[in-house]
Amino acid sequence: MTESTSQAPSRRSLLGWGGAGLALGAAAAGGAAAVARTGDEPRSDAGAAVEFHGPHQAGIATPVQDRLHFAAFDVTTEDRAAFVELLKEWTVAARRMTAGRAVGDGAYGGPAEAPPDDTGEALGLKPSRLTLTVGFGPSLFGRFGLAGQRPDALVELPKFAGDNLDRDRSGGDLCVQACADDPQVAVHAIRNLARIGFGRVVVRWSQLGFGKTSSTTPDAQTPRNLFGFKDGTRNISGTEKDRLEKFVWAGEKDGPAWMAGGSYLVARRIRMHIETWDRTSLQEQEDIFGRDKGEGAPVGKAKERDEPFLKAMKPDAHVRLAHPDTNAGATILRRGYSFTDGTDGLGRLDAGLFFLAFQRDPRTGFIPIQRSLARDSLNEYIQHVGSAVFAVPPGVRDQDDWWGRTLFSEEA
Amino acid sequence: MTESTSQAPSRRSLLGWGGAGLALGAAAAGGAAAVARTGDEPRSDAGAAVEFHGPHQAGIATPVQDRLHFAAFDVTTEDRAAFVELLKEWTVAARRMTAGRAVGDGAYGGPAEAPPDDTGEALGLKPSRLTLTVGFGPSLFGRFGLAGQRPDALVELPKFAGDNLDRDRSGGDLCVQACADDPQVAVHAIRNLARIGFGRVVVRWSQLGFGKTSSTTPDAQTPRNLFGFKDGTRNISGTEKDRLEKFVWAGEKDGPAWMAGGSYLVARRIRMHIETWDRTSLQEQEDIFGRDKGEGAPVGKAKERDEPFLKAMKPDAHVRLAHPDTNAGATILRRGYSFTDGTDGLGRLDAGLFFLAFQRDPRTGFIPIQRSLARDSLNEYIQHVGSAVFAVPPGVRDQDDWWGRTLFSEEA
Repeated sequence: MTESTSQAPSRRSLLGWGGAGLALGAAAAGGAAAVARTGDEPRSDAGAAVEFHGPHQAGIATPVQDRLHFAAFDVTTEDRAAFVELLKEWTVAARRMTAGRAVGDGAYGGPAEAPPDDTGEALGLKPSRLTLTVGFGPSLFGRFGLAGQRPDALVELPKFAGDNLDRDRSGGDLCVQACADDPQVAVHAIRNLARIGFGRVVVRWSQLGFGKTSSTTPDAQTPRNLFGFKDGTRNISGTEKDRLEKFVWAGEKDGPAWMAGGSYLVARRIRMHIETWDRTSLQEQEDIFGRDKGEGAPVGKAKERDEPFLKAMKPDAHVRLAHPDTNAGATILRRGYSFTDGTDGLGRLDAGLFFLAFQRDPRTGFIPIQRSLARDSLNEYIQHVGSAVFAVPPGVRDQDDWWGRTLFSEEA
Repeated sequence: MTESTSQAPSRRSLLGWGGAGLALGAAAAGGAAAVARTGDEPRSDAGAAVEFHGPHQAGIATPVQDRLHFAAFDVTTEDRAAFVELLKEWTVAARRMTAGRAVGDGAYGGPAEAPPDDTGEALGLKPSRLTLTVGFGPSLFGRFGLAGQRPDALVELPKFAGDNLDRDRSGGDLCVQACADDPQVAVHAIRNLARIGFGRVVVRWSQLGFGKTSSTTPDAQTPRNLFGFKDGTRNISGTEKDRLEKFVWAGEKDGPAWMAGGSYLVARRIRMHIETWDRTSLQEQEDIFGRDKGEGAPVGKAKERDEPFLKAMKPDAHVRLAHPDTNAGATILRRGYSFTDGTDGLGRLDAGLFFLAFQRDPRTGFIPIQRSLARDSLNEYIQHVGSAVFAVPPGVRDQDDWWGRTLFSEEA
């Protein structure tokens, strides 16, 4: 999860395209150690590469990147070996793309008669802190003889008050979360994984996010959501090892051994009725959140990070109902993004929050918090329209490891 | 159109929110000259402000920003005075937002009983080179007694071979193009203009673009489209005064006087069938474009900016058919963006190019070029699904001027 700022070559420098006269030799030599260095170094951390290997997958405790492309896939093969092969191919491609390299090893110097191994639109772009994080949905465990491996924590989410879920934006046998500081890099990654998956998986739904709404960096500004409020001030920081262990990472005794070091991801597409919100008074908006709008301070306090005094807030204030003290300590790591998907048929922006939260167990994380939010005065202005839950396996340890090995090798 | 990098305060420094303890005094003092300076200066040009005033609207010759939010509106009022009042209110808001300020003059310090003047999600963000560019569609001239003012150049586009236009993504009485280096700033601007327009205009359709596909800066890297190719290498640069005069700005003798200094905008939503493209051989891809994929050099040449030799290309190559030499010199300024709007019902990415082109006259610009492209071998992989054309009035000259004054004052 460390940022290797010194290892962030331009994608361009790593590629040899047919007929392009680029550094084909360096690319064909392959291997991360053989990376050609150029003078074209990134100007800021935003261009750097995030280490792909580690005990946990990147993209959870990693400082939140600016942009998101999230895709849920359904499996279309019944051949377990073919699916395992896909996970291995995806791992190889993810390892390369997160390092700022193209999919395929020098393949652009290959035969002109074949489709390129990489679709090319990220050529010349920086690694842009791309992370790719894979998760397995409950429905996957109905396949491939995996039923006995399904974690107890991987429950189907209950129906919550106010849910209006669109089946076409919910569920999925597996998912990939792509986060990057450049949206073209995130979109390129999902597209290439979908392409590699042809004949074995198909995209069920996908979501772009244009603005992060949470920070996992202790000193960073808390971003504002589309209601104009800072939200997620007290989010778990990626450097808070104790809280990560307590609330985010699945432990060895928590469930099946294959999930040790993993986490559980809840994804919710939350439509925000911003036209209605925008006609609400400032006082009501602040009462609803339990913070002031400008500074983000809790009711009665001066500064955003001042300890909230919950009893000073209205009983149905958002901050009060979502607070751990209201929910027996329930705490989740939020990593959501604002979205705007054009306009609905009534001239209203189809906009909102694509909520993403990681936790050690949804039964003690998202579920009690969301149940508490049934009374949230914010509900008049939002609606949950998509929902999914995934078991996020542990990280890929090294060059020989692959996504999902702990799940699929135990049974083999 | 000059970049005032020295005048790029944080949005935060300009606002006084109720109860927030911020620099309310400075904001309430109002006026661009009273801007409070802080130590929070932008770290790069990407955060700077683009001058709103000038003979031409910003957002045309301005170096292309990274992100787009484009909205087409329909008029819902029959009251000409109310519409003119909207244009004036929009101008005031656009002037403030492009300078990195909130809508409304210190209004956050105003009554808590009223909705805030600004929706707030851009608070604390840099101006991010935001430009707002307004255009008037042909249908607007059927309203408000404007029929006699409609420019001859503002033709309805003919039906082109292969068009498969969705009415709900086409047309519009007027449009606003918002470009910025931060998508939240662009989305915030469109949202606030739509909010101000309540009861007078309604959003007909809107489009987000996540990646620029053209450059209007002579030395910049040509961005890649979602087919992985550099496109727009020979685009008009914002510094090429002669070509801008010849091909982009409407002159005094070109048509109605109110359009002098304006331009014409053609917008096309082009769906790209990327899954099919990705299974096409490298050779075929390069033949179709008439460039190699890695460097972007024209067929038979070494470098991207080498002069293309059209006869070396296949007769149906894209570069050849779009080239001015094939189209009696027709030249347009392109400013398009890649988009990805999730997934269609068949698991394919709903992705492509939101094509935007400015020109002095569509009859000698986009229309002959698009007719020539009827033979384009690229057509197997793309489809035009949305279309609109707008007359873009000249720039707002100064603090007292407003969008559309030359059109609406002539008749008054």
